[in-house]
Amino acid sequence: MKVKLIGASIIITCDENFKIIKDGGVLFCDKNIIKVGKFDELKQDDLQEVRFYQSCVIMPALINSHIHFEFSKNYSTLHYGNFGKWLDSIMQNRDMLMQDAEIYIKTAIKETLKSGVGCVGAISSNGLDIDFLSKSTLKVVLFNEIMGTNKDFFNIVKDNFKARLEKSKLLEDSRFRAAIALHSPYSLDIELAKYAIDLAKDYKMLVSTHFLESKEELTWLENNNGYFRDFFKYFFKNQNAKPCYSKESFLELFKECQSLFVHCLHLDNNTWDKISKLNASIVSAPRSNRLLNNKYFDLTKANEYNFPFIIATDGRSSNNSLNMLDEARCALFAYKDYEINNLAKEIILAMTKNPAKVLGFNNGILESNKASDFAVFYIKDIEMTTQIELNVILHANEVQDLYINGKRIDIENN
Amino acid sequence: MKVKLIGASIIITCDENFKIIKDGGVLFCDKNIIKVGKFDELKQDDLQEVRFYQSCVIMPALINSHIHFEFSKNYSTLHYGNFGKWLDSIMQNRDMLMQDAEIYIKTAIKETLKSGVGCVGAISSNGLDIDFLSKSTLKVVLFNEIMGTNKDFFNIVKDNFKARLEKSKLLEDSRFRAAIALHSPYSLDIELAKYAIDLAKDYKMLVSTHFLESKEELTWLENNNGYFRDFFKYFFKNQNAKPCYSKESFLELFKECQSLFVHCLHLDNNTWDKISKLNASIVSAPRSNRLLNNKYFDLTKANEYNFPFIIATDGRSSNNSLNMLDEARCALFAYKDYEINNLAKEIILAMTKNPAKVLGFNNGILESNKASDFAVFYIKDIEMTTQIELNVILHANEVQDLYINGKRIDIENN
Repeated sequence: MKVKLIGASIIITCDENFKIIKDGGVLFCDKNIIKVGKFDELKQDDLQEVRFYQSCVIMPALINSHIHFEFSKNYSTLHYGNFGKWLDSIMQNRDMLMQDAEIYIKTAIKETLKSGVGCVGAISSNGLDIDFLSKSTLKVVLFNEIMGTNKDFFNIVKDNFKARLEKSKLLEDSRFRAAIALHSPYSLDIELAKYAIDLAKDYKMLVSTHFLESKEELTWLENNNGYFRDFFKYFFKNQNAKPCYSKESFLELFKECQSLFVHCLHLDNNTWDKISKLNASIVSAPRSNRLLNNKYFDLTKANEYNFPFIIATDGRSSNNSLNMLDEARCALFAYKDYEINNLAKEIILAMTKNPAKVLGFNNGILESNKASDFAVFYIKDIEMTTQIELNVILHANEVQDLYINGKRIDIENN
Repeated sequence: MKVKLIGASIIITCDENFKIIKDGGVLFCDKNIIKVGKFDELKQDDLQEVRFYQSCVIMPALINSHIHFEFSKNYSTLHYGNFGKWLDSIMQNRDMLMQDAEIYIKTAIKETLKSGVGCVGAISSNGLDIDFLSKSTLKVVLFNEIMGTNKDFFNIVKDNFKARLEKSKLLEDSRFRAAIALHSPYSLDIELAKYAIDLAKDYKMLVSTHFLESKEELTWLENNNGYFRDFFKYFFKNQNAKPCYSKESFLELFKECQSLFVHCLHLDNNTWDKISKLNASIVSAPRSNRLLNNKYFDLTKANEYNFPFIIATDGRSSNNSLNMLDEARCALFAYKDYEINNLAKEIILAMTKNPAKVLGFNNGILESNKASDFAVFYIKDIEMTTQIELNVILHANEVQDLYINGKRIDIENN
């Protein structure tokens, strides 16, 4: 049995009690943690490897539960500040952004790993990222996305979606799982949605969807007018487009699935209530939300309805980096009214334990029998601070070392 | 005459009309700009140097108008989230933080230059930074700070302050100017304040002060109780400390000076009114304000009272970096309710034209006769974006080249 021990000045376990261990260690054997405790007490004979990271923090490898790798080419092309203008710019630049997508996907995977992320929920619109992600060292839930409102193309859309889904299903292993994404209520006909949801039920797959990200979407679903009326006229020559759902009927689709709702910036009490009765989690992408919708997710409401905080970067199509720690810092400064130490802790859980529970790779917590997925960050003087969580968020940037399934990752050659 | 020409895909002039020039150029001769315009039209014979920065932005070198270089050693030692706890931690760690200050000051100067800053307003509490700043390539207003409430030490404080002031005055040249800082109303007796203000008037020096940064300070000035009552008991064994000023009487001190008020998080209408009648500017340090006081400066009020937006990093004693572009990004995400393109423009002015007007080095704008202080940032695809200001703030990080007084700075060997 190849047992290894790593230790650091600080271990953040992210367990039920948010236990923090000074001069702590993690004893692990291949894919699983054997024990977490004091480094000195975990030392034993015949260890295959022993390593102590001075002035470092070991925490669960981070989890980015909502990211569009295929849109990684965007840098300064897409229009920010207004959801409608952004979506227009997506429509106008979509083909250009997909050119050479492979190069940018590879770079994005590297950027992801460098920021200490070991596990992602990847929304795959075209399947361009499937092979790269399946070959990468990341743990991946690959959400095959379906989208479409034009009946003329439903069969093509279904076939294309099914082909991607089956391809990713064939690639499934302990590190890679296929799942399904319904793009959003404004972009997906009910026939396609039901088709995908039925497959999700058959295959017992996780389902992700963008939901009530913008006031434009809200106005469309509630009043059948506003931006989206023009959107369908202009881009799809559809003079009589109508929303395919009410908010309620869209939510109905998910009642027998485990689901991930992304954004949820415009929920009223009734909608909060409805979502909270589903087997659903909510993912928030703070920077994306500010850049497209000038708004942050309502954390207080989320608490009230018992939704654990989960943050993600979304894609480069609505962000200036894929670095989860930049996202964490944004959240820290965005939610200025929240007590900073508690918030820092919540943010750490929002990219470890909380998304882990949804993506289901048995990671996100450092304790016996959990996966050996660790991120190691050097933080000067971390052993002396009284505010460990806060200083991790303020200062962690690039991972010192990243372990996935107990293997130290060679990020540059990933 | 040694005339040089530099150009870039984008020039942000920060002039009265916020003119942006595509494929623009700046023609300059030593310390001053001759002309700004289209790169091709500025070409002429006998140029000593011609350089075009593809996919780059040339803008005025940034200005960080409030920074404590002497506290650069702090990384994760000081306590954040509560002003009182932070000040306690300053008191407890002050001596430790000053140890080896020189090393950290040098590093901080480099970090400053790397982020494109060419000009600083440096608050010098102990004079440890004077020589380093005077020898650096930065343009510097060196604010010699005075602080003290214990009458037993007034003469020592005055002598020490005067010695630092005279030293920095002797070092004055076109790049380095001496000025005065009154620490704050809670930390400075009126006798010392008047002593310093009289010198400021005699020498016609700029005066900086921290003002109403915390609710603790507000409570002290308004009600003579709260945190500061205990602060004086505990740290100064003063059982009967009283505030030396009302808000109004403190402001009175500045009525014949040009002044810089820093933070101003707790102004009521009356105080806004009073400050607006002084020859005063306000500097805001967004990250510091969130970290110590969980609050951001009221931009709407500032607009109402015609205070131009000025941002600064403050010191590492209340920030996770001295990078002005990190500060700019924080402001962009902190002020989520502000229209993002206008805000981006305001933030750029907040670290160029607006502070330049106060610090008085004739820079901060790219136009004829202004100083040749330029920051060049590489921003991928900047020539194609429709949102130049926003993408500068989202993506600029480390300066490609920095010019001060027309000289390209060798930052590593500064």
